[in-house]
Amino acid sequence: MSNKNDSTRRDFLKKGALAGIAAAGGMTLGMGTKKAGARALPTPEKWDAEYDVIIVGSGFAGLAAGITARENGSEKVLILDKMPVNGGNSIINGGLLAVVNSKLQKKEGIEDSVDLYLKDLLAAGQNINHIELIKTVATEGQDLAEWCSEKGVEWNPTLEHLGGHSVPRTYLTTVSSGSGIVRPLAKHYTDKLGGKLQTRTKLTGIVREGNTGRVVGVRVREGYNFNYNATNGDRGNTTGTEKYYRAKKGVIMATGGFSQDPFFRGAQDPKLSLPTDQIDSTNHPGATAEALEEMFRVGAVPVHLAWIQSGPWASPNEKGFGVGSSYQIAAGFRFGIMVDPKTGKRFMNELGDRRTRAMAMFNVIGDPDKPNYPISIADSQEGVLAAQTLEKCLERDVVLKFDTMEAVADHFNIPEAALNDQIKEYNRYVKKGEDTQFDKPIDQGMKPIEKAPFYVMEGVPKVHHTMGGVMINTEGRVIETATQKPIEGLYAAGETVGGPHGASRLGSCAIPDCLVFGRICGRNAARDKA
Amino acid sequence: MSNKNDSTRRDFLKKGALAGIAAAGGMTLGMGTKKAGARALPTPEKWDAEYDVIIVGSGFAGLAAGITARENGSEKVLILDKMPVNGGNSIINGGLLAVVNSKLQKKEGIEDSVDLYLKDLLAAGQNINHIELIKTVATEGQDLAEWCSEKGVEWNPTLEHLGGHSVPRTYLTTVSSGSGIVRPLAKHYTDKLGGKLQTRTKLTGIVREGNTGRVVGVRVREGYNFNYNATNGDRGNTTGTEKYYRAKKGVIMATGGFSQDPFFRGAQDPKLSLPTDQIDSTNHPGATAEALEEMFRVGAVPVHLAWIQSGPWASPNEKGFGVGSSYQIAAGFRFGIMVDPKTGKRFMNELGDRRTRAMAMFNVIGDPDKPNYPISIADSQEGVLAAQTLEKCLERDVVLKFDTMEAVADHFNIPEAALNDQIKEYNRYVKKGEDTQFDKPIDQGMKPIEKAPFYVMEGVPKVHHTMGGVMINTEGRVIETATQKPIEGLYAAGETVGGPHGASRLGSCAIPDCLVFGRICGRNAARDKA
Repeated sequence: MSNKNDSTRRDFLKKGALAGIAAAGGMTLGMGTKKAGARALPTPEKWDAEYDVIIVGSGFAGLAAGITARENGSEKVLILDKMPVNGGNSIINGGLLAVVNSKLQKKEGIEDSVDLYLKDLLAAGQNINHIELIKTVATEGQDLAEWCSEKGVEWNPTLEHLGGHSVPRTYLTTVSSGSGIVRPLAKHYTDKLGGKLQTRTKLTGIVREGNTGRVVGVRVREGYNFNYNATNGDRGNTTGTEKYYRAKKGVIMATGGFSQDPFFRGAQDPKLSLPTDQIDSTNHPGATAEALEEMFRVGAVPVHLAWIQSGPWASPNEKGFGVGSSYQIAAGFRFGIMVDPKTGKRFMNELGDRRTRAMAMFNVIGDPDKPNYPISIADSQEGVLAAQTLEKCLERDVVLKFDTMEAVADHFNIPEAALNDQIKEYNRYVKKGEDTQFDKPIDQGMKPIEKAPFYVMEGVPKVHHTMGGVMINTEGRVIETATQKPIEGLYAAGETVGGPHGASRLGSCAIPDCLVFGRICGRNAARDKA
Repeated sequence: MSNKNDSTRRDFLKKGALAGIAAAGGMTLGMGTKKAGARALPTPEKWDAEYDVIIVGSGFAGLAAGITARENGSEKVLILDKMPVNGGNSIINGGLLAVVNSKLQKKEGIEDSVDLYLKDLLAAGQNINHIELIKTVATEGQDLAEWCSEKGVEWNPTLEHLGGHSVPRTYLTTVSSGSGIVRPLAKHYTDKLGGKLQTRTKLTGIVREGNTGRVVGVRVREGYNFNYNATNGDRGNTTGTEKYYRAKKGVIMATGGFSQDPFFRGAQDPKLSLPTDQIDSTNHPGATAEALEEMFRVGAVPVHLAWIQSGPWASPNEKGFGVGSSYQIAAGFRFGIMVDPKTGKRFMNELGDRRTRAMAMFNVIGDPDKPNYPISIADSQEGVLAAQTLEKCLERDVVLKFDTMEAVADHFNIPEAALNDQIKEYNRYVKKGEDTQFDKPIDQGMKPIEKAPFYVMEGVPKVHHTMGGVMINTEGRVIETATQKPIEGLYAAGETVGGPHGASRLGSCAIPDCLVFGRICGRNAARDKA
């Protein structure tokens, strides 16, 4: 089929079907006009700078790409980032890396396989994952822990067993954060490998060569000042100076997701269209969609954009992931119940999947201008008191402490009798070991809610990960809608790619995705013809 | 916020920040090259034809747009369609129109409201519908039955009550098909209003003016021969002759969905990437994504593309909707059970929602190269024998008849004991009035499966509706990612728009959406400045 198309296209070219097009002199391209963003960019008369490989974004994917591009013989490699600091969202990520057949798995005697990894990701992703991509992650990711260690990353000595994974396979950095990966990789890239890393430089256009359609560079704004108060994904920010950078071998887009972009996320789910001070995100403020949108303008395939993951464990009384999320995951949801203050009743399985819980909570919250936040109520049982962040939550008023249930009802204006009935009912389920109200799995660590003082946290889902992005092949090349083939010279890796995680990303699978495809993109771009 | 952006943008314009751009002479635009699709098109030197309003697509939305554009004073209106016949997918649609406060509702004493309509659509759409769009449909759609009647459409004298609707509100054409709307509207548009309708003319590009970014015309191929055997959405088909048509007042995209486009639908769900002879669709063969993709290249916002509705009621032994779907909806699913032939066991609630059933069936089918189609098994109870299409299904071997359950097991190679156990178990649920296996709602019309002969139909989900598309506002104007504002001169209506139906479209709500927004687009384009 593709051969046939190629030949019809060649016939078309031979015929030189160029009639009706203006002489180029008439082709004003709208540069600098109101609609400047509407077109893929042509080659400029003069380049302001020249590199072999240009990487946009300095998180996990961008750094891995920079390292392999240098290792594979590219002399001049540039990683650019629009923010004033490098690391993107990766630097505030949790630092969890899921890989199979690792040294720690061997040491701990855990049997794992690429197939089992795929099975887990497909189950979470509702079977719409682009399977060849996660197969690549699972297969090529087996050495990642050591690859990182060689650059100075420090891992905990034992594996984590995360929800949704059939076996323990997750490494965690000793600092419990992605910064434990970003910092050593960035240092290795710049200091050891002599790579260039330039912040405050925002991509505003991808340049394609007229004759071949090949991506040959980027338009950027140097000295860009990201507007932290913008509520529109920082669109229309024209700070800095416009420059054109040539990329002789390739451009790698490692530009992340759009969890902090009310416009683009709201297009997929209108309740997320409110500014981030009303519908918050766990992401860094730069997680906006403009680079992604530019890829669509040059013809990339939109994949899975409507799948947006909100974390149901967050607090409306602090920004981002905060300290509340850890408490809610470890204690509030497991040992407590979540109720609607208007009714005093539970409305979901507190340990259900993220998507179902977030939807149920948004329904309770209702009008975001007058939000009715659901609350988790827990008592002084062992599991609750053991929650690591409880103290910080209390200090910051993210969790409140009450001596009686009456005081809880009073503070949150809950119908007290209904609340007491609900708690009695739930306590029966705990004793029986079966929740016939919402099918929450009751384990032996859970006790009835009865021991004062009581701990209460308001809950709100926060936008956590955007599964969608552009389509790539297993070589990291961005596919074009019109041809169904790669756009020469254009690569993408990490959260800006759609497909690997399907409908829902499993925890600890973002880092391997970013690092594996970052490495693939860097290697392929470096080896590409000049 | 938008004011602030406007002013920064104006400042930028004043500064004339055009440095670094080649003289236009160097700007080859890739026209006629391999990558021709990658760029929005500039204004051609000469237009081959000139119209006031150009409408792309001749289904419900396109025809409504053509009629109102003529009625609102546009002299020269063109509707074009790539296919050899007009009507698109609308002409094979079911002809169901859901409207509120209609004459028939008044006659039948049914109380309804815009709010109730919204409630029903939001429930089906998982609350991610663009609510202002469906509010417009509900509000402005109240006169649609009469508006159609005036043009010669004939409706049944009583309303239908469709699943998911709180009250009966659905008109049905006397011919039980959308052709009963398409034909009279097309005749009215051409014969009464003197509008032009031109088939075999395919849009290949949207032309934007350099200075303003305004859409001022289209590039097409006249005399286009759609390739019915294409398995790639007919991309790269260069039949016909390239022409440029100017649209002085506006271009209206009424180009439908992409249910027949394995590449684009497969990007959202890889199991749908197989050619339509393996994963079929109920749609007409022209339901491909190329026009939609061109809108993304000129900067439109992708909305809800990942939400694709497959109808779980179809047969693998005939093309499209066929006769089997009606039987399966009316009889197979309600009075029978669906089992996996490998196990003889049920695997879903046969009356569950479309999405859940389709996913469960795809899981049973497994490898599409060696499909294991699930089968519905029904007996000779009254409800089954009353199914209107049963006879045709038997004639066409879509439904097979067996004298004994042993013969069923034998023919489909089902473990017989397991099958018999399953039927006995199900029959107990029917007698008890409660299905504790899969929670299928048991109604009084359902009888145990026991009376020979038995009727068996293989089942397969077929791609039925694509909820996603471009973002529009309530004026039918296409919104641009870069500016979050309308692209001047560009409108869209119907299935190519994303948002109204959210995650899942409710039956009989496509026609009002198409007609209301078709009318809005036609009116606004006609009134737009020249």
